[in-house]
Amino acid sequence: MAELPAPLQLLKLALGRLPGIGPRSAERLALHVVQSDSQWVKDLAAALVMAKERIGFCQQCGALTESQPCELCEDPRRDNGLICIVERPVDVISLEKSNAFRGLYHVLGGQISPLNGVGPEDLRISELEERLSSSSIKELVLALGSDVEGDATSYYLAERFQSKGIRITRLAHGLPVGGGLEFADELTIGRALEGRRNLDLEESDD
Amino acid sequence: MAELPAPLQLLKLALGRLPGIGPRSAERLALHVVQSDSQWVKDLAAALVMAKERIGFCQQCGALTESQPCELCEDPRRDNGLICIVERPVDVISLEKSNAFRGLYHVLGGQISPLNGVGPEDLRISELEERLSSSSIKELVLALGSDVEGDATSYYLAERFQSKGIRITRLAHGLPVGGGLEFADELTIGRALEGRRNLDLEESDD
Repeated sequence: MAELPAPLQLLKLALGRLPGIGPRSAERLALHVVQSDSQWVKDLAAALVMAKERIGFCQQCGALTESQPCELCEDPRRDNGLICIVERPVDVISLEKSNAFRGLYHVLGGQISPLNGVGPEDLRISELEERLSSSSIKELVLALGSDVEGDATSYYLAERFQSKGIRITRLAHGLPVGGGLEFADELTIGRALEGRRNLDLEESDD
Repeated sequence: MAELPAPLQLLKLALGRLPGIGPRSAERLALHVVQSDSQWVKDLAAALVMAKERIGFCQQCGALTESQPCELCEDPRRDNGLICIVERPVDVISLEKSNAFRGLYHVLGGQISPLNGVGPEDLRISELEERLSSSSIKELVLALGSDVEGDATSYYLAERFQSKGIRITRLAHGLPVGGGLEFADELTIGRALEGRRNLDLEESDD
């Protein structure tokens, strides 16, 4: 028995395809599963299948959703003149957690990356164009990564849509809240300096 | 949508009960699942249920097994005069991987720990006693942890079975193979010194 019994081996292989789970972790998890409560294992299996079956992508904005269109697109309290452009469906969840954005979203499904063969036509940009022409959008907020591909995608979108009389903005770069200078890299410090703002005493009294 | 959709939330909670998976990892895994290949998700769910249903504990030795008794207990090539005592079923797999032990196993299912209310009667010690009286065991190899509970359990077993004329041994302590002195703690170095052996040039020529 230098090897695991077959059902354990199969489970280890399946678990090993989860992100961040290497062969050793997968084995540890598989061994935990067979030694734990039967009901929980059934619940976990059912939750996996149910989540995969029930959760899809919103046809309008591309976010993860149970309904079509998604709750966000349907919500009358959201400002539908404002669209935040993100790369992945999970980015919508990150932004929603901040509770700082009250508009709608548009998920591109990737970033422009000629090296990886990803061009504008591979992303949900024509869908975005359609939304822009069918409703009165006042501002596009670009919330893409600040790597080379993210920047390229941001500039591409800005160029493509600037003629439409829409305000195009991007998220600020700067120091993370709660982090000191010693934890920030030089590029971030550079951007934080460029983007410095007046310390308005009256405003901060609010 | 500051919260995840309900099926994702359920999946996150179920995944969060895996060892070493905190709430953030569980969320990351859940989001990965709903965005990945449907067939793999079904396979993973099936593997979970199948492993839990098919894998049980050997009635004789307590190891993880698909059959009763397990492959190890049934294997005629194993030395049935030699029993290695381990704490958990997974320890059997670790020892088997070393390919250095050709006897049988006995899983205790825990260690004696008065603070946690675990006494000898809570472990599979009476089953061990039965095995010792029904077959001719020559040696017990204690492969328990080297913490306080492991030591207590080892001494308890040694005392209980020493009258039966059985040789009782325990695994050697010392430096891990491939590890230098700088990575070993002082207790391990102390044990490695105590247990030092003659460097037999003829033997090492083998």
